[in-house]
Order: sequence, then C-alpha cells, then structure tokens
Amino acid sequence: EPDPDPLQDFCVADAKSPFFLNGAPCLNPSLALSSHFTTSALTKPGNTKANPFGYNVTYLTLANLPGINTMGLTMSRQDLAPNGLNPLHSHPRASEVTICLQGALLVGFVDTSNRLFTQQLGPGDAFVFPRGLVHYVYNLDSRNALAISGFSSQNPGTQIASRAAFVSNPLIPD
Amino acid sequence: EPDPDPLQDFCVADAKSPFFLNGAPCLNPSLALSSHFTTSALTKPGNTKANPFGYNVTYLTLANLPGINTMGLTMSRQDLAPNGLNPLHSHPRASEVTICLQGALLVGFVDTSNRLFTQQLGPGDAFVFPRGLVHYVYNLDSRNALAISGFSSQNPGTQIASRAAFVSNPLIPD
Amino acid sequence: EPDPDPLQDFCVADAKSPFFLNGAPCLNPSLALSSHFTTSALTKPGNTKANPFGYNVTYLTLANLPGINTMGLTMSRQDLAPNGLNPLHSHPRASEVTICLQGALLVGFVDTSNRLFTQQLGPGDAFVFPRGLVHYVYNLDSRNALAISGFSSQNPGTQIASRAAFVSNPLIPD
Amino acid sequence: EPDPDPLQDFCVADAKSPFFLNGAPCLNPSLALSSHFTTSALTKPGNTKANPFGYNVTYLTLANLPGINTMGLTMSRQDLAPNGLNPLHSHPRASEVTICLQGALLVGFVDTSNRLFTQQLGPGDAFVFPRGLVHYVYNLDSRNALAISGFSSQNPGTQIASRAAFVSNPLIPD
Amino acid sequence: EPDPDPLQDFCVADAKSPFFLNGAPCLNPSLALSSHFTTSALTKPGNTKANPFGYNVTYLTLANLPGINTMGLTMSRQDLAPNGLNPLHSHPRASEVTICLQGALLVGFVDTSNRLFTQQLGPGDAFVFPRGLVHYVYNLDSRNALAISGFSSQNPGTQIASRAAFVSNPLIPD
Amino acid sequence: EPDPDPLQDFCVADAKSPFFLNGAPCLNPSLALSSHFTTSALTKPGNTKANPFGYNVTYLTLANLPGINTMGLTMSRQDLAPNGLNPLHSHPRASEVTICLQGALLVGFVDTSNRLFTQQLGPGDAFVFPRGLVHYVYNLDSRNALAISGFSSQNPGTQIASRAAFVSNPLIPD
Repeated sequence: EPDPDPLQDFCVADAKSPFFLNGAPCLNPSLALSSHFTTSALTKPGNTKANPFGYNVTYLTLANLPGINTMGLTMSRQDLAPNGLNPLHSHPRASEVTICLQGALLVGFVDTSNRLFTQQLGPGDAFVFPRGLVHYVYNLDSRNALAISGFSSQNPGTQIASRAAFVSNPLIPD
Repeated sequence: EPDPDPLQDFCVADAKSPFFLNGAPCLNPSLALSSHFTTSALTKPGNTKANPFGYNVTYLTLANLPGINTMGLTMSRQDLAPNGLNPLHSHPRASEVTICLQGALLVGFVDTSNRLFTQQLGPGDAFVFPRGLVHYVYNLDSRNALAISGFSSQNPGTQIASRAAFVSNPLIPD
Repeated sequence: EPDPDPLQDFCVADAKSPFFLNGAPCLNPSLALSSHFTTSALTKPGNTKANPFGYNVTYLTLANLPGINTMGLTMSRQDLAPNGLNPLHSHPRASEVTICLQGALLVGFVDTSNRLFTQQLGPGDAFVFPRGLVHYVYNLDSRNALAISGFSSQNPGTQIASRAAFVSNPLIPD
Repeated sequence: EPDPDPLQDFCVADAKSPFFLNGAPCLNPSLALSSHFTTSALTKPGNTKANPFGYNVTYLTLANLPGINTMGLTMSRQDLAPNGLNPLHSHPRASEVTICLQGALLVGFVDTSNRLFTQQLGPGDAFVFPRGLVHYVYNLDSRNALAISGFSSQNPGTQIASRAAFVSNPLIPD
Repeated sequence: EPDPDPLQDFCVADAKSPFFLNGAPCLNPSLALSSHFTTSALTKPGNTKANPFGYNVTYLTLANLPGINTMGLTMSRQDLAPNGLNPLHSHPRASEVTICLQGALLVGFVDTSNRLFTQQLGPGDAFVFPRGLVHYVYNLDSRNALAISGFSSQNPGTQIASRAAFVSNPLIPD
Repeated sequence: EPDPDPLQDFCVADAKSPFFLNGAPCLNPSLALSSHFTTSALTKPGNTKANPFGYNVTYLTLANLPGINTMGLTMSRQDLAPNGLNPLHSHPRASEVTICLQGALLVGFVDTSNRLFTQQLGPGDAFVFPRGLVHYVYNLDSRNALAISGFSSQNPGTQIASRAAFVSNPLIPD
C-alpha cells in the first residue's frame, strides 16, 4: 500500500538509465518484452552460510525483475538453516505476509506499545507483519526451512536494528 | 499499492461488526491476539474439480486472516489439475506476482494495446501481472501444479470476463 | 483516485521528452502556456463507423491536453450510432461517471460476484462504473447518442475483454 | 487523485447511518441497487437567479448519487446566465476539467506564483483547473451557457475567497 | 498526506538536473551526504518589512533542504511584526499545524460552508489549518511573534486570494 | 505522505465513539468547535527524568488535538536534559523533520545499506529523518535542549528497537 499508483499499464525499469527519481525511469513501453516480467531469481536456495545467523533472503527487485516497477508489491524467498534465525528487523516501507513452505517457523512482531505477537508456523501457514514493525523468523526444525513472502511495496527495504546500532558506516558515536 | 495507508500499527477486522465502510471496522486494538495474524487457510489444496477448468484459488481474506486489514496486500494459493486452466480474468484493484512452486505453467497477460506478454514457468519462476489487466495461467504439466501469488491490495477482487458477459445475474440483455 | 498526488501547481507533459517514467516528464514550468491547459479535441463527434459496433470514444490525453498530467483525472466524449454499442470493457486504473447528453442509453456493470447493475439513461442522467469492473453502454435510440465521462485517473486505460481474448498480438494459444 | 483507493467493488453511502468517518459509511453491499449508481440530479438547469452573479453549480454528491462514495471522482453541471460569472473560487480537494457545452466561456486560473492562465472556450472545448488554485468562469455570451466538469475527488469542496473573507460566520475580526 | 510515498530510503533533490517531473529528480544515492539532510535556513528571522502586512514566512524547500524530496512534509518559520498579519491565504496541497513560539496569535480558518474557526494562541499553543482552506495569523502582541509550522506535503504552495484576484500577471479582466 | 487523503474539510476525532477503524471516527461536523483544532499540550516541558536517558517527547495526538484526524501530519516537542539522549528508534509510518530550538543536538539516521548520516544542530537548524529508518538525537549541551518535529502522518508510531528486543510483553524467546 505505500506505493504511488501506476499511471500506465506498466513501466519496465530501465537498467541503463543514468537518471534517478522516486522509483525508477522506464523503458519505452514499445520495447517491453515478456522476459521483463519474469525471473528465475527465486529458483535456488539462498546461501544460509553467508552470515552467522543461518538465514538468507532473496528479493524480487528492479534488477532481477524490471517489470515489477510501479506494481506496488514485491516478493521474496527466505531460506533458514536448521535453527537458523532471521534476526529482529523491520521494513521501513512495507507490510509483509509470510507463508511457510517447509520447516517449523517461530515468528513474531513487536508493536509500538511493546506487545509481542508470536506464532508457530508449519507448512502452508501464513503470518502478517505490519508495516515498519520489528519482527523475526526462527526455524525450530532440524531441517532447512523455506518461506515465501509478499510485501506491500516494490522496495520494502530492510533494517536490522542491531547492525544499524553497532556497525553502521561510520559508527554511531558513543 | 492501491490501498489507503494504515494509520495505526494494525486494525484487525471485526467479523462481528454490523457496520460497513471502505475496508473493514477493527477490533479494539487491546483485544488483538496473535491468532488474528495467522491462518492455516492455505495449507490444503483447493478442489480443482469444483469447476470445469480444473483450477482453484484460495485467498487470504479478512474472514480467514483478519489481521490483514489495512496492510495493503494479500496472498493466495492456486491449484491446477493436469492441464488445468485459470481462465482469462482480471483483478480490478491489484497487481499480482505469481511464483510457480510445482508444475509447468504457461502464463500471460494482455495489455490495453492488445499485446500479449507470455512465458512458461517452472518451479521457482515468477511472473508479474499488472493491475487490472486480463491474464491467465495454464498448467502444461501432466501433474498437479501449485503457485503462490502476492497482490497489491487486501482485496484485489476477481472478474472473469466471459462469466460476466454470459452468466451475470441478471443476464446482460442481448 | 488511483493517481499519485501533484507535488507542484502543475506539470505540463513534455511531448518531446525522450524519457519515460510513471506518468510523464514535464516542461520547465516557466514555459507553461494557457494553451497547454485547453483543447478542442472533444469538439467533433468521433467516427462511429470505424468499428462494427457503432461507437467511438475520444479521450483527453497527455497528447491533446498536456496540462492534465498529474491532475488525477481525465474526461472523454462517447458517440454512439443508432443502436450503437460500446461493448463490454473495463478501465484498469479508474472509476468512471458517465453523463448522457443525447440518446437513450442502456448502461450496466457487472461486479466481482457477478451481479449486474443496469439502468436506462436519458439526457442529463448520470451513472457510476466502479474501478476495474466490466461495463457497457448501448444506444437504444434511433438517433445518434452522446455522453461525457469523467475518470479518476489521467490514464484509465481500456481493455475490451473479448478482443484481448481472441485477437491479441500474438494470439493467446488455445 | 486525492482520494483513498476503494477496498471493495463499491461502498454505497448509507444515508441513514448515524456515524461519521473519512468519507461515508456504506450500505451492506448485498443491499446495493442499480438505482444507487444513477441520478437525474443534473437533468435540469440550476437557478442562475439564486445569486447576484448569475451562475449555479449542481454537483453529484453522496446525497443524490450514493454509489459515488469511494469512487475517487465526481462531476457537476454549471449554468451561467448571459454574462453570468462563477466568481473566483477554489476546490480544496480536487483538480477540475471543464467542458463547455454551450455559450462562450472566458475561464482562467491563477497559480501560486500569481501567473494567470486564461482561455476562451466554445462548445466542446475543455480546460484544466489544477487542484486547490483559484479560478473563474465567465459567460461572454448573450445566451445561457452550460458546462460539465469532472473533479478528482468525490467531495472537492468549494471556497469563494471573497465570501470567506467578508461574510464568514462569525465574521473575521478586522 | 497528499504526497506519493517514497520508493527508496531517500531521493535527494538534484539541483542541477535539467529534467522536470512530479516532485524532483534525485542524485545518485551513493552521492548523498549528511549535509543534504540539514539546513540553517530557519535560523534567522524573516524580514517582516518586506511587505506592508508585517509578516514573513520562510519554508524548507528542495532548494535549501534537498533531502526533503519524497519525504511527504515540510516545515516553515513565520515571523510577525507587532500587529503583523499573515493575510487570508490557502495552501493548495497541504494541511498545516502551527505552533506559536512567541507572541499572542489570533488565528482562524474558514471552512467550505463559510464557518469561521478561530482561537488565540500563546507560546506553545498549536492550531490546525485543514488542507486547502483559507486562513490567517495575526499578531496581537506589541512585540515580534514567531511560529513554527508543519505541512503535509513537501511543497504545499501558498495562494493569497486577494493578490490572485487583483494583481495577477496578467490581470484578470474585469 | 503515508496517510489517506481527507474526503471533507475536517473529521474531528470522536473521543467517545465505541468504534474502531483505520484512523478514527469523527464527530458530526456541525458539532465541530474551534477548540477541537487547538491545544496547549506542548506548552510545558516533558519530564526528562521519567526515563534513564534524560529525554521526553510529547506528541500532538487525536486525544489532545482531535482536529488533527485525517490531516496527514502531526508535530511533537522533544525535551532533552543535559547530555540527554533520545535513543535509536524508528517511526513505522512517517518521515520526520526536526528543528532545534535550544541546545546543541547531535542527530543521525542509518539507512538500509547501513550508512550513517549525522549532523550537529544549533538553534534554528533542521534535519530530515526518512520514513521508517532508525535515528537518534543527543544533547551535547550542558543545558536543557528543546526541539520541534513535524511528521508525515497523524500517527507516526515510535519503536525503540532495543526495548522491543529485550523487554517486550511477553519477552521474545531466546
């Protein structure tokens, strides 16, 4: 819901444009191809060993799916190693709905009055993370877990509060 | 993207409210429970024999997931029998991104200048259907197919043009 | 209502810009002229013989009325020959209000639960077509009919479901 | 463009509701009738003698066309006596496009840098008044004039600056 | 509230861009600096002698605070000489909240049914001016007054109805 | 920018309504009073001893300023003791602009790529905190500090990541 509405059928992001604006410039619509609206970016598991938490999120973005520009949503796949954790983070520009496909996920969000809403998800179960609120996903299972999420913006952004607090560039002064 | 933005952390739809408005009235937020944000509605395959086309779509709605109210998105699962077809239809209030989980899907949309954009999807492949444009999903596979979709509105609506044309209630006069 | 809000008094569409974005780039505002905000595009009846249905719709667009860019609405004139039909179509990005100026119009839309809402309009009567829903306008009169419509987007788009289904380019495979 | 997007096919304003909210509460959608989407409110000329300026504007509103609720636009008819003037006014919540049907209209708006954009309109000519800017319509003709307008909000509101300045209730203190 | 939502963390206005669009083009985000998000533009009182009314408003704009682009709000300082008046004006694209820091302010707005809402404000008191409605601020005090305002758009615009009526360029014809 | 647009001049929040919706129900507009649009809630310093950090933020809310409902913005005052800190937090539904009135403020935000943007502010200086991103305000001065902020939503919400992480109710499981 946070995104401006489209003013034409589509606005395929122009990867070669040197211009920046709110969202992205588009290709001449007469040059739009079916391939601009499709991607295989989510076919392979993300590498859960790339970080100490044992998780990986792959997003559909303007880079791998240029047809998503102005569409007002995106999706992602989330891979978690056994006992992997997608640590407390927020998406500044989107609400999220996550569907567990595999694994046993312990999920939760904290609202602005500091209440925790939490649930355990098995395959097929879904959960809502309201816009901008911190949340987490933990794999209780001894096998890999997989989840698909939808987001209410083409570019939700992700902020991991603990990283922002302690390892920003430059560092936040004490 | 079409939805109004949320004006509070969440607004859990009140299933017992006798009032109607744009969207849905909410529960007193102090009564919100974790269970309002979760659902098992997508855990089971839809019945693809309920219609002659061999497909079934199950949506997350205010009825099965009241926490989705004001979140600006929803999701669905789409089951297709072998050679099942989700026939030409449009969503008047949302763009859609579909991820194929199983099967071999032939998908396509037609834009307002009557161009067809089409693609074949295998497991993990994704495709964009721009807001309000007619589109279809066909399972080329001899096995059941399954896809997950995200939508840029909490209530995208679905209109099957051929049904609207020929079997509306009452019928459109000749 | 679907359009992003304006961020300045006006943003006259720049017909010569080689750039594409959501909506249209604008002229330097210091070059805006009164003529950019006016048009005679609707002064003449559309040719109702250009198609077998006997209707013609002329829209105000960025091409004939560049001042309409970012204004969040457009208008059209609709001409119908005696017994002319504007066949079942939808506007993916706008609601429409039609005012009958001449003729006897049988109008209707079908909602997403397949209910038909229909009415007969004489001169001065108005009717609402909700966003994205299929609808039609038929001239019951033995004389030409004329109607004026307003739309809730600067570029509502028009999709005739039957044409999309049967004569897209390329054709939808059987 | 200023209005929130619809979250359902329609939300027919409930004239009997005792509740107030942003927009209007709706009827149970199962009670919606074709008549809620149509009106004859614009069939008759407004009384141009009701004020000293010789003009009258009749709007489509929730009262005469309840189906317009959440649709994001409205329309009006504007009658002007010979040499009638719709004096300098603004619409706080909408842009406007006016189509002259009869008469010779001198129209204009003033932008926030105090530039005047003005034009003379004959039958069929259209003009854009950007959101919130003061504008006027004057009938140069010795016969009655008639114009149809579209607005980018269901409730644009009208403020006549000179009346607000001099005859508000209570009066603005000197 | 009137502005489109941001589609990235920020979109610092590019002061050197030759392109115009709804809002402003941005710098390559990798070139954004802390200085783009800060300004000293409000540190000094505006010159209340620059006009006969004895007031001056200084806005945060894309020129003095380029980081405000796409943020959906701006702020201003308002200086009033003893008995200075910010005369009847409207902001076509924003609501406003004013906080009195110094002086005794008589403030008011007139709604579209011509009701006046008025109040006297001392230091720390706040008042709401709804979007697009004419309003005024008068300093009852024999000393200078100062107020800070927030606006619900990055570019609210200001229109002084009396100036638009009588000294537009060119003049509105009699 | 995140809020839905107003559909009437104002919608004064009805503090006695038993109903909940996105935003708040309003009073019958004929009962609106000047006092609904004004407040003294910001006249007194907040108690900076109420927490160990030495800061206090007072917001304009529907409770103390019911006229702000549907206006799309709010404001706050922020008091900081000598060396007081408003610790790392985010506003899930709004961008913020802060103006320093007193003190020497060290402010900063971290973007989603973990870059820190920071600045020192003296009286009159302003700074932008983009929507949803974590940020902080620290008073370098040995005297109390005071700042006024504007927000692009009537209810921005505040989330202090460290509190959400460690003292939610119930606690997030280890």
